[in-house]
Amino acid sequence: MGTVTAPWKQLLLNALQSNSHLRHSSYFQLATIGSNGRPANRTVVFRGFADTSNKIQINTDNRSNKIEDLKQCPFAEICWYFTDSWEQFRINGTVDVIDGSNPDPMKLQQREKAWFASSPKSRLQYLGPNPGLPSLGDQSTNVPTSLDPSAGPVSAYCLLVLDPDQVDYLNLKSNERITFSRKNVNEENSWSSDKVNP
Amino acid sequence: MGTVTAPWKQLLLNALQSNSHLRHSSYFQLATIGSNGRPANRTVVFRGFADTSNKIQINTDNRSNKIEDLKQCPFAEICWYFTDSWEQFRINGTVDVIDGSNPDPMKLQQREKAWFASSPKSRLQYLGPNPGLPSLGDQSTNVPTSLDPSAGPVSAYCLLVLDPDQVDYLNLKSNERITFSRKNVNEENSWSSDKVNP
Repeated sequence: MGTVTAPWKQLLLNALQSNSHLRHSSYFQLATIGSNGRPANRTVVFRGFADTSNKIQINTDNRSNKIEDLKQCPFAEICWYFTDSWEQFRINGTVDVIDGSNPDPMKLQQREKAWFASSPKSRLQYLGPNPGLPSLGDQSTNVPTSLDPSAGPVSAYCLLVLDPDQVDYLNLKSNERITFSRKNVNEENSWSSDKVNP
Repeated sequence: MGTVTAPWKQLLLNALQSNSHLRHSSYFQLATIGSNGRPANRTVVFRGFADTSNKIQINTDNRSNKIEDLKQCPFAEICWYFTDSWEQFRINGTVDVIDGSNPDPMKLQQREKAWFASSPKSRLQYLGPNPGLPSLGDQSTNVPTSLDPSAGPVSAYCLLVLDPDQVDYLNLKSNERITFSRKNVNEENSWSSDKVNP
């Protein structure tokens, strides 16, 4: 494993750059398979790559349905459409679910780092009521309005790390489409690419 | 079955209205289960509701992977995020795949109607080379640049009709979330709704 950037990663960094004036350019849709065997799909926020790797980080609430989905079936596909440059990235891979009970100290460290990288305001949401459960009226009085900025991750905070092994890139302006496949699952940075019909 | 509008449909029509200045407001992400058992996710375009129903229409190429996906597993989830009003609709349902070989004359009529509702320019793409197959260089010379506007649907044109039975609505401005469930699969317009925690 070297520090060679995967060929699709540079395209993605370029798209992020050229769409950075749009708040929603860091939002994408994450599809999983629900515990009922049906597809599930929701908008999440890109939280950067894990260090220098190609792995994509997502913050989520440990109590949300996607955690159960991913524990039963670890595969997911990101669909990321850039509304200004008309580029789409479909990123298929395996998701590592890292909550506070993870036995790997390196992963716990990665989770802590991602926690501190998020804004103190966004950390507050993990202290709110259980997402998806019936709303019991005005619970705002029960939710703290501030959090010690030096406090580590709370138990509801979970880091998802998607390790891509297939990327489908589509550019609707140039009408070009390229599929990237990881050649060897052990070699993160060895990718083949093929031009295909859009 | 009456003409009563499903409660989430009015919210969706309002969102379409308030985001109509954005070209991409009619784009959403459609998740299916691929033939490899992994989730698949791609951007598609909203082509309106089927008549006065709650069913959502999508145009697609009969040669694309999603057709195989849906024939093996008819379930899909739409994730539709409106970037200006900060609203998300997650629409889960069953997809009817209507191509030219469909035995139901009513469905063939529906497909023809949707074909003529799309622009002559967008109809041309179904005459292009097989999507997803290796690109054989400059094939633009082989693709017709115009099509008789009165000609009916070509064989590669396929209409997808998603019949929703669960809708998860999230408003990030008001921080409200509502889940809608079809009470009885036979009664399209009978829905229950619950406020849940975002």
